[in-house]
Amino acid sequence: MIASREEIRSDQEARAPDPLVLAFDLAATVLFALEGATLGVAAHLDLLGVLVVGFATALGGGIIRDILLDAGQPAALRYKRYAIAAFVGSFIVFLFSDEIREIPTGTLVALDAAALSAYAVSGAAKSIDFGTNTLTAILLGGVTAVGGGVIRDVLVNKTPIVLVADFYATAALIGAAVMVFGVRSKQPMLRMMWIGAATCFTLRMLGYWNDWNLPHF
Amino acid sequence: MIASREEIRSDQEARAPDPLVLAFDLAATVLFALEGATLGVAAHLDLLGVLVVGFATALGGGIIRDILLDAGQPAALRYKRYAIAAFVGSFIVFLFSDEIREIPTGTLVALDAAALSAYAVSGAAKSIDFGTNTLTAILLGGVTAVGGGVIRDVLVNKTPIVLVADFYATAALIGAAVMVFGVRSKQPMLRMMWIGAATCFTLRMLGYWNDWNLPHF
Amino acid sequence: MIASREEIRSDQEARAPDPLVLAFDLAATVLFALEGATLGVAAHLDLLGVLVVGFATALGGGIIRDILLDAGQPAALRYKRYAIAAFVGSFIVFLFSDEIREIPTGTLVALDAAALSAYAVSGAAKSIDFGTNTLTAILLGGVTAVGGGVIRDVLVNKTPIVLVADFYATAALIGAAVMVFGVRSKQPMLRMMWIGAATCFTLRMLGYWNDWNLPHF
Repeated sequence: MIASREEIRSDQEARAPDPLVLAFDLAATVLFALEGATLGVAAHLDLLGVLVVGFATALGGGIIRDILLDAGQPAALRYKRYAIAAFVGSFIVFLFSDEIREIPTGTLVALDAAALSAYAVSGAAKSIDFGTNTLTAILLGGVTAVGGGVIRDVLVNKTPIVLVADFYATAALIGAAVMVFGVRSKQPMLRMMWIGAATCFTLRMLGYWNDWNLPHF
Repeated sequence: MIASREEIRSDQEARAPDPLVLAFDLAATVLFALEGATLGVAAHLDLLGVLVVGFATALGGGIIRDILLDAGQPAALRYKRYAIAAFVGSFIVFLFSDEIREIPTGTLVALDAAALSAYAVSGAAKSIDFGTNTLTAILLGGVTAVGGGVIRDVLVNKTPIVLVADFYATAALIGAAVMVFGVRSKQPMLRMMWIGAATCFTLRMLGYWNDWNLPHF
Repeated sequence: MIASREEIRSDQEARAPDPLVLAFDLAATVLFALEGATLGVAAHLDLLGVLVVGFATALGGGIIRDILLDAGQPAALRYKRYAIAAFVGSFIVFLFSDEIREIPTGTLVALDAAALSAYAVSGAAKSIDFGTNTLTAILLGGVTAVGGGVIRDVLVNKTPIVLVADFYATAALIGAAVMVFGVRSKQPMLRMMWIGAATCFTLRMLGYWNDWNLPHF
């Protein structure tokens, strides 16, 4: 029996999110916006175009997840904090684009891996809250994590990078799977979010350092 | 007066789908996934990319339809059978990609036409169940049938094939129209689904054999 | 406290839309469809492809807005008038494509600016009705105005024009912002819609005549 959407939504609003999870989530939003906006600058978009790509990268995955969950107005639009975080991330690019170019690639990959991990587990957690089956919860963890990047790549007219290269979406899906199976085994949600995120982060970094790739055909 | 979404959804769940329609629908899902995954392989995507394109091709049209109908969580996510069918179709490509390449084009076109027909009428049927007007029911039949293919082509960065060539989406729309007008004339839904699907299939195959194309300007 | 979706929707249906606003909205739909279809013809799409691009351009922005607002079945599908307006606009292109090519660019830009203005304020107005915060209402005004054009450009495989050039989406956002801030300051909605639309139209035309562009980086 699926609870009505209104009941679930009230629950969501009554339950204050864990402050550390929320902080992690907002930091991830800032970071994805920063990455998207950086790509927008590289694609010679104008000021607004850069902002749009920053917002789409940062908020797109969560918006798709909330639409697919039938979760009412997407959280990215309902709570101003997400739009503000996306704006901050995009704006940093305008102010510090030279400095950003000098950050070592390894640092950027690690920051991105942290954001990926945060989105993968928070996406899967929200799916569980909305009563999806195990498979869907894992898939929506992955969609939350990489969806914004896919929209970004479609907007700047490229084949989405997650489709062609790298052990990236795979790490997100495995992290989400670890979390979801843990919760299904009656482990506490919050603990499993951290374990799932750590799994995703570790796999992504191992994949980056060791140049893992999925097989091609 | 439009029935509330919750009422309609309960109706949907109470009414066991016709087993033959369901079997046809799942076979169509397998087939569309197979086609999508084949294109993914041809575009040199990695394992996950191929799966993503397979899933998007197979499930995208129905997901768009369910979002537009405001039908709650899309059936493709709510019931595991669709994801499993999409997975099976994609996986077949990994196991038998050589054999698939040897299937005569005419056979592939016929299989695809069958899947197209199944999606067109099931999409239109669900739209009728959700109380849309006649025009919208026909359009959503077409969207269900070709939507996954459009997402697939956007993901691999091509102009959607249905926009530029072939008597393809047109066959889906005509099949859906036959079905919807039949139901509006008090014919039984299930009978009209078969008649609509047969119309779509016949038109698509006639179009293929006779090289029908819509006019260009 | 957000009102339930069903309450809002009944309100929407009870409140007959202002006839002048509705006429303006439908005229905008015809015009956007006409522009989309013209681009479809230029991209050598077939008859159906041209119709699809016409429909997507005219109805896409409003459909995205309604999905994001969780507003039930999108108005573009619920009320036949929008599909009919989109069809009329696309069809005009088939009948008068030569004549359309002879319309001076300035006239086309002015007509497009009028449609942009209509969509920006009607999108923001609907967002306010659905209880979004100020920032979201402004953003959704912009999404309504340019969303169809973005879908159109993605479909014909181009980088969305609004991302790279022109003082276009910016005018829509400013017009929506003027309207939303006016309504928040207790001005009547209808008056602010006209003021917001006039602002958007004026800015867009000034931008066109003076070749305004946002800064690039």
